[in-house]
Parts: sequence; C-alpha cells; structure tokens
Amino acid sequence: MRVRAVVAYDGTDYGGFQSQANAPTVQAALKAALAQVTQETIAVLAAGRTDAGVHAVGQIIAFDTAWRHRLGDLQRALNAVLPIDIAILEVEEAAADFHPRYDARSRHYRYSLYNAPVRRPLGRRHSLHVAAPLDVAMMQRAARSLVGEHDFATFGRPPQNRKRSGITVRRVLMAEWSGEPPWLAFDIEANAFLYRMVRSIVGTLLQVGRGRMSLEGFAAALAACDRSLAGPTAPPHGLCLMEVKY
Amino acid sequence: MRVRAVVAYDGTDYGGFQSQANAPTVQAALKAALAQVTQETIAVLAAGRTDAGVHAVGQIIAFDTAWRHRLGDLQRALNAVLPIDIAILEVEEAAADFHPRYDARSRHYRYSLYNAPVRRPLGRRHSLHVAAPLDVAMMQRAARSLVGEHDFATFGRPPQNRKRSGITVRRVLMAEWSGEPPWLAFDIEANAFLYRMVRSIVGTLLQVGRGRMSLEGFAAALAACDRSLAGPTAPPHGLCLMEVKY
Repeated sequence: MRVRAVVAYDGTDYGGFQSQANAPTVQAALKAALAQVTQETIAVLAAGRTDAGVHAVGQIIAFDTAWRHRLGDLQRALNAVLPIDIAILEVEEAAADFHPRYDARSRHYRYSLYNAPVRRPLGRRHSLHVAAPLDVAMMQRAARSLVGEHDFATFGRPPQNRKRSGITVRRVLMAEWSGEPPWLAFDIEANAFLYRMVRSIVGTLLQVGRGRMSLEGFAAALAACDRSLAGPTAPPHGLCLMEVKY
Repeated sequence: MRVRAVVAYDGTDYGGFQSQANAPTVQAALKAALAQVTQETIAVLAAGRTDAGVHAVGQIIAFDTAWRHRLGDLQRALNAVLPIDIAILEVEEAAADFHPRYDARSRHYRYSLYNAPVRRPLGRRHSLHVAAPLDVAMMQRAARSLVGEHDFATFGRPPQNRKRSGITVRRVLMAEWSGEPPWLAFDIEANAFLYRMVRSIVGTLLQVGRGRMSLEGFAAALAACDRSLAGPTAPPHGLCLMEVKY
C-alpha cells in the first residue's frame, strides 16, 4: 500500500530534508521511525527537498508499506517515536503510482520577518530579524511583478539531480506580503521552484524594501536572467513549506 | 543613574530568571553583559522571578550604572553582547528609588496552548500541546470566577523570600481565554502572583476543559484554600510574562 502523509517539522536542528552523511535529516528520522514501527526498510519520497534550517507545516511524503492495521494507528505510532520537532499531521492511502514531487501542481512557501530595531527572542527560530526600516508597499509592488511565467535564472539554478537541467522557467501563481508589523510574511506559490529561489527572491525584495534597489532595478534583474544581479540570499530559518497542491 | 529596561527572553535554555549556582540564568546573563559593556559590577533587580523554562516579552529590570553616554547606546551595546535568546527592548532613566518588583501595580502573564490531536513542531518551545479536546466555554466560565480578590492558597504558596509569608490573598484583574483554535491563550493579570500560581491555575482549568472537573468543583477548590485540590501544574514552556504595570 502506498501511503501519503502531511509532515510538519522545525528544521532548525536538521541538515535539510534529504538524507546525507554529515548531518541529521528529516528524511533519515522518518525512515528510522518507519523502520521502528513497521519493521520494514522503507524509502521515503517527498514533495520538496527543503534546505538545512528550513521548516515545514505541509511537506508531503509518500512511502510503501505492508502495514495491515488502521492508518490512524500508524500515524500515532510514528508520532510516538519521531523526534519532538517532527510530526505526521495526516495520513491517507494513495494511488500506487502517487509521487509527491512529480505529481505536485504547485508549492506554497512562506518567509517570515520580524522588522523592528531590536530582535524578538521567542520568534527567532522561525523568522528573520530585520532591524532596518522596510518599505513594505515597495516590496509588495516588486513582488507582484514576479507573478506569471518567467525565466527565474536570476534567482536560482535548477535542482541538481534533474535531467532537464538548465530549464529555469517557472510559473508564479501568487507572491504577496502580509502581516501585522513588526511581523511580516511573504507568501509565494509557484508550479515549482529553482534551488534557493524563494530565499534569493526574499533577499532581493529586502534590497528593494531598504531602498537599495529600485522597482526598475528589480524588474531589470528579473529580466536579465543573471544570478549576480540578485540580492544576498536570505537565511533559511525564516522559510517554511506551507502547502503542496495536487 | 538608575536605569529601567524592558527585557524579552526565550526561557527554554535557562534555569529561570534568578541567579543560581547550577544553571545558566537570565539574571546572570544580564549581569555579565552589563559588566562587559560598562566595566562595572552591577546588581540587577527584576519585576518577576520567572521559573526555569518560562519566557518573557515584558520583564522589567532596574540597575544602577555610571554610564555617561546615551541610553540608546547602552541598549545597543547590551544587545550586541547578550545571548541571542535575550534582548533589551527598551531602556529609560528611572527614579533613584525605583524598584521593579515592589513598585509594580500588576503583572500580566499569558499561557499558550496548541489544542489538536497531533503536536505542532514549530510552536513547541512556547506553547503546551494538549491533544485532548477542550471545552473552552467551560474554561472561560471557570476563569472568570477567579477575577476579584481571593485567597489563592489552592493555587500556590507565597514566594520563599518574602517576610510576609503566609499571605496568599491576591487580586486578579483579568482572566480570559482567547485565540483561534487550535491556538489558545489564557491571559491573567493580577496585582501579584503566588509561586507557580499561573501554571497551577492553567493546569486546573485544563481539568475543567477536559470534563474532569465541574465548574462547581473548580469553585469549591478555589474556596477550600487547599493545594491538594488543584490540578497538575502546567509545564513552564507555555508561560510568558507579557507586561508589568506601575
């Protein structure tokens, strides 16, 4: 049986989603929990390979298991053995060929900011502290210019393992700032993202918000398809994978 | 010059506010930062001695210093050397005899809950996960019975170092549940609190919310002035000192 699950995690203490030799990863923790609960060796597919330090409340995973009991029991058993900073929010049976990455129609990420002169300790694990004043209206106008189908080569490169590498066109469905100052959030939904694209866009929008880049400069950077014209990539801890749509 | 400051901290990694031998404390971190910045040995007074794991966004401290530059510079210098999980939000000159604890008219604490079957990793450092369904309307009715002047001996004992020990009468000015489920918050303001009083009240209100204690039982527990009638004390990580009024 193929199972589809919604996973949330605090990425602070992980070296990203995907298994690697040198750091604990969310994928390795999920595999270990599945092995403990099912006594099977189970491969875990995911919708998005979030970077080290990036969080999720709507990561989608899929795996095959011979589990014969109720899926709610599998969810409870997994949550009981998973680390406290990872949780399985939902489980359901999926089609045998369901693939969380290839079948996804769009992904929605949120980047959270705390914009005030002094940092706020309690929010620091999931929001970026920006001390400088920001012109949110200008960031909003720049963000909206991202909506639509564009070549986003300025803001990232294609994922490494893709066969169709070099293709950097993506379709952005939504790009919006919201929130109640000093808390700000940037929501962006696209059919897919380039490697570090959201963080690169946020870092560049912050240049606009700080008056270091004009709206025209932002539009020119997007049009140029030149990675060197992007602002500094925003750090990972403000980023969260909110939802994947199918 | 006596300085009054507003301090915020993530209490997760501290053994409480007050200095002690066996654990890092917020007070010790503040003293170390003051010593580093001013080259003086400075005592730090505080409005509330928050327990290990309890947070603050509005802790009030006072200290005496020979600082001759601008207070804004002192604040920036302190924030630069303080650990990332402590921040000085405001500083101002105070009267020479200002005492943050004895002069306080009231304290406002908030206890945060995440009430859903599955835990939410990103909020876990500053909210209690309660998996069981809660009857918030019943908790609200019980909470309102706390407002006014009562002997709260059921919900705590007087602070250890007080000369007037044994006095357990406090005046609660506000006690309210709010929030958007599954996130819930309990706000309580009183002239002063007994040791662990907020956490004991929350633990008892949760018994009401889970149907394990009736409204009448809650009222009887309050009236009995009997510590053994309180519910289990709620853990510290959901609690935050919001504001102190003078």
